[in-house]
Amino acid sequence: MRNIKLVMEYDGTGFAGFQIQPSGRTVQGVLQEALEKLTGKPVKVVGAGRTDAGVHARGQVASFQTESGIPGERFAPALNGCLPEDLRILESGEAPPEFHARYSATRKTYEYLIYRKTEGAVMHRDHALVLTGELDLEAMREAAAHLVGTHSYRSFCASGSGVKGFIRTVEELTLEEPGEWLRFTVTADGFLYHMVRNIVGTLLLVGQGRLNPAEVKTIRDSEDRTKAGPTAPAPGLYLVRVEYE
Amino acid sequence: MRNIKLVMEYDGTGFAGFQIQPSGRTVQGVLQEALEKLTGKPVKVVGAGRTDAGVHARGQVASFQTESGIPGERFAPALNGCLPEDLRILESGEAPPEFHARYSATRKTYEYLIYRKTEGAVMHRDHALVLTGELDLEAMREAAAHLVGTHSYRSFCASGSGVKGFIRTVEELTLEEPGEWLRFTVTADGFLYHMVRNIVGTLLLVGQGRLNPAEVKTIRDSEDRTKAGPTAPAPGLYLVRVEYE
Repeated sequence: MRNIKLVMEYDGTGFAGFQIQPSGRTVQGVLQEALEKLTGKPVKVVGAGRTDAGVHARGQVASFQTESGIPGERFAPALNGCLPEDLRILESGEAPPEFHARYSATRKTYEYLIYRKTEGAVMHRDHALVLTGELDLEAMREAAAHLVGTHSYRSFCASGSGVKGFIRTVEELTLEEPGEWLRFTVTADGFLYHMVRNIVGTLLLVGQGRLNPAEVKTIRDSEDRTKAGPTAPAPGLYLVRVEYE
Repeated sequence: MRNIKLVMEYDGTGFAGFQIQPSGRTVQGVLQEALEKLTGKPVKVVGAGRTDAGVHARGQVASFQTESGIPGERFAPALNGCLPEDLRILESGEAPPEFHARYSATRKTYEYLIYRKTEGAVMHRDHALVLTGELDLEAMREAAAHLVGTHSYRSFCASGSGVKGFIRTVEELTLEEPGEWLRFTVTADGFLYHMVRNIVGTLLLVGQGRLNPAEVKTIRDSEDRTKAGPTAPAPGLYLVRVEYE
């Protein structure tokens, strides 16, 4: 058995998320179908991040095992030849036998994009959160500082997610403003379910003056999901990078 | 009868063009339906530019006559309340009785957007032409200079378009390169059918070294559509501004 690693991007708009489901078009489902066509055998694909419906990826990583003789680097062009145009393989290659796209990942980076103007909003509604109105970026950055480091992020984890540990290390959480955009970048050793979208939803409350920055520390320490802000919508979220040792 | 002017933007991806058709979802059709709901009477909407299927607008202008008592500036919010989210009215207001969105227009500006990287392309495929590979911008600009001024632009007009005069005045034709994008901006007193897309298709041949800049003058003077380049795809095109006296 050979182990193959794929790096891919997709427009999440037309997918019911990464993970295969009984019904609905999924990234995993579309990939497995293409791989079965290519290798002649059923293939089980594992993704580094199980992105939700409407969430995009610019650097999702997946792995699968195969007995096919196709050279590792040839999977990318071969797959692109039969995949739909909202899913593209950026690179492919052989991976060590123990490599697992999800369990071997040591660090992931997500971005969350907000488009802040009325004009042009129709073009961006599937690929960003459109949000006009003033935001106090200074206050949001002050609040964001409480969400960096090793903490329980349970207050930002969708309830009923079934996870056991809630401690994660956020290495970076930055806000940038290129032109009419606002971009959050979050790097961590792992993410809880809806963690980035709940962090963004909470920081937006701070930006709108409905929470003060110090309250975000209180919310974090409460380990109570109901204290934090709403889950920001899926179309603004991008999985941009997955790193391995 | 009052005369109302609308300025709007739309994502052309989900429309079979501006102009109403026996079948297919059109901007005019969707607008007229919303206006009939709002005013209680059938309304005939005229657009400044009859954009094709897949072509976008950031500043399309339309006009219509109505006996409704709704104040001119209230049409924008009222329409936005019942229009689908891929069509937004940016402003509305009373216009003089003789105003006609198409016939009164003295100048229009289109942009054509090209995304030049493989990475990120899936996000932009409906809103730009994705084109990788080297382009000689210097040569393209030299060629573009032959497509500014008052000339017959028949070589760049879709054949069988039924127009009589082919003389137009192009006031501006520029190429800019913000980041991984290439943006053409064309301003003229009027446009022939497919004119911008045929100009872009021809300039791309120059950029790829398949035509030299001087040949573009020859093509222009030939008044022969078959001499010019192919029609660039619809998703890159935006109607950005319509001007009136």
